[in-house]
This record gives sequence, structure tokens and C-alpha cells, in this order.
Amino acid sequence: MVPYSPPVDDMRFVLEQVLGRGQLTEVPGFSETTPDMLEAILGEAAKLASNVLAPLNHVGDRQHARWSEGGVVTMPQGFKEAYAQYRDGGWNALPFDPEHGGQGLPWAVAFAVQEMWHASNMSFGLCPTLNQGAVELLQEYGSPSQKTLFLENLISGHWTGTMNLTEPQAGSDLSTVRCVAQPAPDLGENTYRLKGQKIYITYGEHDLAENVIHMVLARTPGAPEGTKGISLFIVPKFMVKDDGSLGERNDVVCTSIEKKLGIAASPTCTMMYGDNSDGAVGYLVGEECQGLKLMFVMMNNARLSVGLEGVGIAARALDQAVAFAKDRVQSKHLAKPKEGPVRIIEHADVRRMLLRMKSLTEAARALTYQAGMYLDLSKLHPDATEAANAKAMVDLLTPVVKAWGTDVGCDVTSLGIQVHGGMGYVEETGAAQHFRDARIAPIYEGTNGIQANDLAFRKVLRDQGQAASAFLEQVRSVAEALEASDEPQLKAMKPRLSDGCDALEEATRWIVDTGASEPNRVAASAYPYLSAFGYLAGGWMLCRSALALSENAAAPSAEFRDAKLATARFYADHFLPQVRAHLPAVTAGHAVVDEAPESIF
Amino acid sequence: MVPYSPPVDDMRFVLEQVLGRGQLTEVPGFSETTPDMLEAILGEAAKLASNVLAPLNHVGDRQHARWSEGGVVTMPQGFKEAYAQYRDGGWNALPFDPEHGGQGLPWAVAFAVQEMWHASNMSFGLCPTLNQGAVELLQEYGSPSQKTLFLENLISGHWTGTMNLTEPQAGSDLSTVRCVAQPAPDLGENTYRLKGQKIYITYGEHDLAENVIHMVLARTPGAPEGTKGISLFIVPKFMVKDDGSLGERNDVVCTSIEKKLGIAASPTCTMMYGDNSDGAVGYLVGEECQGLKLMFVMMNNARLSVGLEGVGIAARALDQAVAFAKDRVQSKHLAKPKEGPVRIIEHADVRRMLLRMKSLTEAARALTYQAGMYLDLSKLHPDATEAANAKAMVDLLTPVVKAWGTDVGCDVTSLGIQVHGGMGYVEETGAAQHFRDARIAPIYEGTNGIQANDLAFRKVLRDQGQAASAFLEQVRSVAEALEASDEPQLKAMKPRLSDGCDALEEATRWIVDTGASEPNRVAASAYPYLSAFGYLAGGWMLCRSALALSENAAAPSAEFRDAKLATARFYADHFLPQVRAHLPAVTAGHAVVDEAPESIF
Repeated sequence: MVPYSPPVDDMRFVLEQVLGRGQLTEVPGFSETTPDMLEAILGEAAKLASNVLAPLNHVGDRQHARWSEGGVVTMPQGFKEAYAQYRDGGWNALPFDPEHGGQGLPWAVAFAVQEMWHASNMSFGLCPTLNQGAVELLQEYGSPSQKTLFLENLISGHWTGTMNLTEPQAGSDLSTVRCVAQPAPDLGENTYRLKGQKIYITYGEHDLAENVIHMVLARTPGAPEGTKGISLFIVPKFMVKDDGSLGERNDVVCTSIEKKLGIAASPTCTMMYGDNSDGAVGYLVGEECQGLKLMFVMMNNARLSVGLEGVGIAARALDQAVAFAKDRVQSKHLAKPKEGPVRIIEHADVRRMLLRMKSLTEAARALTYQAGMYLDLSKLHPDATEAANAKAMVDLLTPVVKAWGTDVGCDVTSLGIQVHGGMGYVEETGAAQHFRDARIAPIYEGTNGIQANDLAFRKVLRDQGQAASAFLEQVRSVAEALEASDEPQLKAMKPRLSDGCDALEEATRWIVDTGASEPNRVAASAYPYLSAFGYLAGGWMLCRSALALSENAAAPSAEFRDAKLATARFYADHFLPQVRAHLPAVTAGHAVVDEAPESIF
Repeated sequence: MVPYSPPVDDMRFVLEQVLGRGQLTEVPGFSETTPDMLEAILGEAAKLASNVLAPLNHVGDRQHARWSEGGVVTMPQGFKEAYAQYRDGGWNALPFDPEHGGQGLPWAVAFAVQEMWHASNMSFGLCPTLNQGAVELLQEYGSPSQKTLFLENLISGHWTGTMNLTEPQAGSDLSTVRCVAQPAPDLGENTYRLKGQKIYITYGEHDLAENVIHMVLARTPGAPEGTKGISLFIVPKFMVKDDGSLGERNDVVCTSIEKKLGIAASPTCTMMYGDNSDGAVGYLVGEECQGLKLMFVMMNNARLSVGLEGVGIAARALDQAVAFAKDRVQSKHLAKPKEGPVRIIEHADVRRMLLRMKSLTEAARALTYQAGMYLDLSKLHPDATEAANAKAMVDLLTPVVKAWGTDVGCDVTSLGIQVHGGMGYVEETGAAQHFRDARIAPIYEGTNGIQANDLAFRKVLRDQGQAASAFLEQVRSVAEALEASDEPQLKAMKPRLSDGCDALEEATRWIVDTGASEPNRVAASAYPYLSAFGYLAGGWMLCRSALALSENAAAPSAEFRDAKLATARFYADHFLPQVRAHLPAVTAGHAVVDEAPESIF
């Protein structure tokens, strides 16, 4: 297996030079993140990722998580020790509340670190990602006693958390959740007995930690039908006594795990609640019937994390493809046939593929960190208007980061196979694993189709395109800066970026004009709209990156400067035209989707 | 598993109504293929595919081909019986020379039949595909005695054939083949002893047939270096006596099979020649040092067959996704929320995905059959000019069918997963298998990057764009027919098709103008050029299909008419804009690919 070399240079460049310019120091939490500290954090994370997690990635794929009678799930060799290192290094606590043992670092920084977990070993990285959801929920909505009992151990990573939403009939539509929670005042305040089945529960059971704390959606007796009748419960695998020590086993059992296309080391569990008793003991979070609202607050940030999975897996595939292309000798070079066979990285089409991988990956990375930065600003900016603007931007960008970022993950990992040729199709090189692993991300945490609807309806139509206009204004100011640049290569990108703005503006206007009267037309156009948005947003980030360098931002090296300019140029010619290319699908292509009778299929 | 319903209606429509109009009866071989005969052939093939081959597809994926000590390869349960049915039904002989037991049917018809093998069970379908290569080689270049000894059994399918090209150091570049063939006049005329290793040999060993006939590239003593020193040999697994009966085992052994991403039931073999003796006995085909030329004549047609694999697997994924979407109930409909959850085929974004799958699949199908038709015309048309024109068109379209068709296979199977949501990612639904199986096709028989170079250099630059202009002229005449149509929906497609023509014309001009002086720039632009070409060619076929229906071509049903019009309209809005979107990559995006120093990676 090719070793993983985390792109720390690019991570730092984005955080410090692209995002940092102007806004960085205004955020209280961010002002403490000095360049030295950032260097130390990313450097140490890179070591853990490349030395410990990456070597286990292929092992995990081969051995996969194993279920055995009694509901025991055994992780592949080495995962337990790796998790202990991760936990003891304090990595789990990075972005969380210092009051409960967190380190209070900005999300933008945490994202850079988490990208390395996903890149080195996506199956491993999912455990902290799900835990993060549970932590965010309890930080925001847990009662003081719930925080005391559960939060500290979840933040430290001694326990892990899960999200229990899906049931066989309730996937994208949680309104049909059937899991039942009966009040059990005999057991204590806010205490319930849960019965029901949950499926597709990531890390629902495993042997990495002492306890697993499940966040479970269930319905209380007499609750209204649909989403308004769903409540959220904490259900620990082992009961937690008042002194924090572990008590009896709760009646929650993993009855099977799925055989999946990828992320084989991440156990995807079917969980049975209360099948061997009066019910699994659970504790209500917040109030009855508020469950879905609570879950969605958490899920919104989780969507950024899933976008980050796309970035991470893409980055890993790129890393491996570059290493292969520098090593593999095959065929003569077109322009110098007399020199004999060359390393394939010299062939134009291989370079094209690698540039495609690199420019998409770096665009998606910068965009995801940018969304993380807006998240930080929205929470911590002292100026209320600035905070509100940042909130509008992170809300707008979240579905784009999730869906476009994970589509990028699929595209780039597929190219990673192609660069390897036949060797990419056999499993021993590992290129195919990235392709298989990446394919889950467009599906979970709300399918990409649901993200597209979220963007079109909740993020664009609801405010009549205001946030989208603010975004376009930012992109246009970058286009103006390109125009004003003395560097011909930057100037040449300007028309492409401007044309993208014009096209997205027209598409946005169509959404706003159509949404109220013809919602189903907007739903038909939402995905092409999101794709166009993603391509423009990615171009915005890379153009900003190129501008930052031309404005004498410190580049880690001359090679880095060359490379960033190359990815920006490549992106402008190869991807920015995709914004306009999606316009006819948005403004006209909805008609046949809506009109054609079902009998055509 | 969802049963497979072969799209016989669309196959017949394309063959009879789209391709047939005007040209069909002019070809001697084709004039005998009456509608009744076509109906019978496709109907019987559909039965074998859906009743016998399709149920084995998932079995094959789970059990995969197994290697055991001594070089024995055991196929999954049921494959041997299925192959016997296939063979005894006479299916293998369809497109081959009647003089040696073939049925002499046109390629366009054989393609429709073969699409069903790939759709129902791609791993199975590869065995006849490789055999076909061996048959074509021997039909064209075998000596009379070689034809007598080998051809009849290969055509009947009692024996199977293989192509042995690749060695570890010789993949895309066959000039470095090291396998050695020593003349062995002691054994007979044109007889050699071969030593060496071949890898990635599809169906190099298996238990479906009595004998396996390998076509092997090797180097004779004193032959020039590079491709000019390669010869082609027949190496049978079992020696064949003069009376046609089987003799001793030859010294060719399968030493291992690959663990691959997909097509798990198709054994991908490492073959050792002559490791336990003085050499494996082989017979020279044609003359010494003509091997590569011979192999490429065969490979050109094989490339159309690989494009067809993309079509077949896409069609299967579509079939399964439609069945799932018609069955799975989830979420309310946006426009009628009071009706409660609906089958997901009613949701706009699911319909968009299915239309995307359907329009790409049908476009690629029609284009592939069209190429098959040109192949038939090029071989059988009585008018030499017509035959030459057809030859120019099939040559031009071959790399497009191979690369674009297999890219379509990957896109459509990925959408097939997405339609299934979480159930697409678990292996039990089978959606993921199509995605894994499809991913090989862009790699083998010349990677898609190599196809792009073939298109740009050999098919466009070499004749200074003449064939491409002839193609564009045909597309423009379809655009004019759309313009002249009374149906507003057809008229509306015209500007999209015309704009695609303008863009491809400009791209073609750039290739022609640049190729001689800057070949490496053309190599950098070749893939986007091929993609643009593919999108336009697909649109050409669907617009012709819609026109054929509006000109009162017989449609199998009103639903079929609706459906074809829907796919054409959808394609026009969603895919034809891709032609222009690739233009900047062709005419400008090559610069950074060529100029950027390697240190950027």
C-alpha cells in the first residue's frame, strides 16, 4: 500500500491565507489559533493519520467488522489500539465545549484534522463523526445531569455516540418512525422504556470503547402522527450510575451488520431495542415531540462532515494516484518518442486526470473549510450582523458542501482507478477501495437529492434568493479582482468566473420565480441547480486561492505556488463552464420530468 | 433479486425504425433479417438472458470464480449448465462466417443479442466476447488448416478463445512484450515453443468448455525491438490432433486469478507458458512480426463490444432502479402532501435520475448499434463508395462508442445505486454489483484515454477532419429536420443540437489546426473532445429516434412513443449542453496540462 501523505501545506494555506485574510482574527476562538499552534496540531494529526490509521485502511477492508452470536461486533485487527491512541491523544475533544473537557477549537481547524481521519481510514473516521453528532446534541439540548453523566466521556472519546434514525420503512422520511417509548416514572424522571428496530446504525456496536451512547428517535404514546410526534432519547449500552460508573447492560442489541459495497470496517448495525425485556431504558432529551427539530440541528453540521468525507477520500485517491503515476513506466511520450517509455505522469492524459482530481479536491476542500469558518463566525462573531450573515452563508453552503463535495469524492476516486489502469481494478492496490468507500457519502445524512431540495426550497426560495445573491456578490468581487490583476493567467479566468455568475444568477431567478407556483418543477431542477452552484463555489475558492498568492500571500514553496495556479487555471477551463451547462436543465429540463407519464418507465 | 426484463422493444425500434430507414435493405446480410426473424431471435435471446443468465448474476458475484492448486479454475454454481444452454442454442455462432458453422447475421443484430448477455450477467458475457476476438482473428488470418482445426469449435462455442496480450510491464504499451517463441520445426510447420507470463487474461482458464484456445503475443528470436517484433500464436490448452480430437495437455497453466472490484465470476488469470517444459506448443498466425497488426484488427471490433458492455450494464441498472422506484414507498409528494407517502417514482428528483439513466442508456444503445450497422455496411455494401463511407464512420465512432459508452455505464450504474438510497449500498439488492462490474469497461481493450487519443489522432487528425465533417453534416441534417417538424417539442430540440454541432465543429477545427505542430496539446485535449463527441452523437441518435416516431414510424405502443419523446427531450436539455461545456477544455484547457511542471503533483 502507498503511504498517505496528508496535504498539510494546502490545509494551512487555505486556513491561513485564503480564509484567514481579513476575517480570521475577528473570531475569538480563532484568534488563539496561531500559525504555530496550527502547525503543531496539523503536524501531529498527520502523524497519527499516516502512521497509524492509514496502514489499517486496507486491513479493515479485508477483515471488515464481524458480528457474532449475542450481538458482539469485533473490529478488524489494530483498530482497538488505533482508537486508544486517537482517544488518548485528545483528538476527539478538538471542537467541543471546554466546560466538559473539549478544546474549543474552531470548526474550520477541526475540519482539517478530521479530513485526515477520513482520508487515512474513512471507516475509522466515521466513529468520531457519529460521536460528534451525539456530543453536539447534548451540548445544545442535554439537561445539566445528562451533560454530567454522558458528555464528558463522549467528548474524551472513552465512550462513543450513535444516531438512531432509520427504520426499514423510515429512511429519507422520518415521519413514519415506529419505535415506541413508554414513560417509566418508576425508573426515574424523564425515563422511558423503548421498543423497536433501527437499521443502518453506524458503529451501533463495536469493541473500541467501554460504552456506546445511542441517540434514538421514538414515538411516545398519544403523540401526533408524522414528524411532530417524534421524540429523542439517550439509550446507553451499559447503564450509567449516578457516580458515573457503568452498571448493567441495557436491552439494546445489535442483531446483524450489513454487507456493504465499502466502508467495510465501519459496522452498519441493525439494533433491537427492548426485545428481551419491558424495554430498553432511555432518557428524554429536551421535551417530548421535539425530537426531529433537535436531530436536525445536529444533522446540519453532520452534513458538512459528510462533505468532508468526500474531500478526504478524494485527497487520498489523488495522493495514491500521483504516487502510482510517478512510479509506473509505460509507453513513450508523444513529443519525445526516442527517449523510450516514460513514467505515466508525463503523459498528457494522465496529467489531465491528475489535474482533474487535484483541482476538484482542492476546490471542495477550500469550500468545506470555508463553510466551517462561517459556522465558527456564526457562533462566535461579536458583531450580531456579521454573525447573522455568516449563519446565512453556512446555511446556504451546507447542502452544497454535502452533495457537491461527495459527488466530487465519487468522481475523483473513479479517476483514481483510471490512472491505475488494470491495476486499479484489482483490489490489492487499494484504489478500488476508495471508490467503494466514497460511494456511501452521497447517500447518508440526507441523500444528495434531499440536499438539492434543501438548497432550492429552504436556502434559496424561502428568503427569495437573498443569501444566494449575497454569495453571488462575493463571487463577482473575486471576478473583479481577477480582472484587475496584472497576471495574464489570472485575468484569463475572469470571463469564466463571471459567466458562471451570470448563469447561476439566472438559475436562481428561475427558482425564485417558479417556486411558489410550481414547487414540483423546482424539485425537478434542484439537483442541476445544486451542481451548478457547486461548480461555481469551487471556482470561487480556487480563484481566491490564486489571487491570495498573487497578492504575495506566503506560499509554502515555489512548487506550491505553481501548483495552486495550475489547479485554478485547470478548474477555470474544465469545470467553470459546467455552471452554464446546467442552466438549460434548470430552466427548461424540468418540464419533461414533471410532465411525462409514469408509463414511460 | 429483481428479474431482468430485456428492452426488446427499444432494440427492435432502433434496428428497424431508426437504423433501418433507408439503409437496412441495401445490405445483403441484413435484407434477410426480416422483422419476424428479428422478433424471434431477440425473443429467444431474451428468454435465455432473463431466465437463465440473470438469476446467476448475483450467485456469480458471491461465489466468484475459484482457483485451486494445479491451476484448476472452477466457475460458480450454475455457470456450466448455463453455458451449455447458451452453446447448444447456437447463440455463439450468430455473427460468424457460415462457411465454418456461423450464422452470418449482421453485427447490428448480434449487438442487440450480446447486450442481453452483458445486461443479464456481464461476467458470463465476457467469455463469448473474448471468444469472438479469437474467432475474428482466425476467420481473417488463420491458415486453412488452422481454420479447420480450431475455428468450427470456437464458433460453435464447444471451445472458448482468449486474448493474451498483457504482461506485468506491458499493459497499454505492448511494445515491451517479453514472452518468447522459439521455432520448433521438429514439431511441425509454423510451430513454436513459447515461454513467458501473461496477466489479466479473461477466461484464461475455466471449466465451461472442453478446450481453451489462447491467442498469444510473443517475440521470436532476432525479431526487432518494439511492436514490430511481435508475432501472434495459437496455443491450445489441450493439443488438437489432426482428426480434431483432443490430445495431451499443453504446458500453459493458470497460476492465479485476481481479486477484483467486480465481474467476480469472470476469471482474470495469470497464465504461465512453458514453465514446466521446453515451452508451450504454439502455432504462428499469419507471418512472423505481424502480430500486433493482426491483434489490432480484431481489437477494433472488440472495442465496440466493450462499449456494448457499458450499454448492457446501464440497461440492467435502469431496469432494476425502475422496479425499485415503483415499489418503494417513501415521503409525501410535494404537490399533493395530503395523499401521504408515495412510491418514490413519483418524486421529481427520482424521476430526474431515472430519466437521466434512461436517456443516456438509450442514446448509447442506439449509437452502438449504429456503429454495428456501419460495420456491416462497410463489409457487405455492394457499392464501394458506400462501403468506404461506412468504414470511415465506424472507424470514427469506434473509440466514441467504447469510451463514451463505458463512461455512460459507470454514470448510470452509480445513479442506480442512488435511486436505491441506503439499500443501494448494501450488497443484497444487487445495485452495487452493477456499479462494480461496470467500472472495468473504461479500462480494458485500450483505456478510455487511449480511445481519446485514437479519436483525436487517427480518426480526426489523420484525415484532416474529413470523417468528422461527414459526421457533423449528418447531425446537422437531423437538426434541420427537427426545425422543419410541426411538433413544438421536436422544434425545441433543434437549437440544442445545432449548438452542439457548432461547438464540436470548433473543437474539431482546433484539433486539426493544432495536431501537426503541437501533438501533446492535442493529447491533453483528446478526452474532453471525445466526451463532447459522445454527447453530441448520443443526442443525434435520440433526435433521430424522436423524428422517426413523428414521421409515423411504427411504435410498439403509445407508451413507447411517449417514452422515446421524453428521453429525447430530457437528453436535449440535460446533456446536449455538455458539448459546448467541453469546448474550453479542448481549445484552452490543454495549456496548463502541458505547461505545468511535474513538481506541482
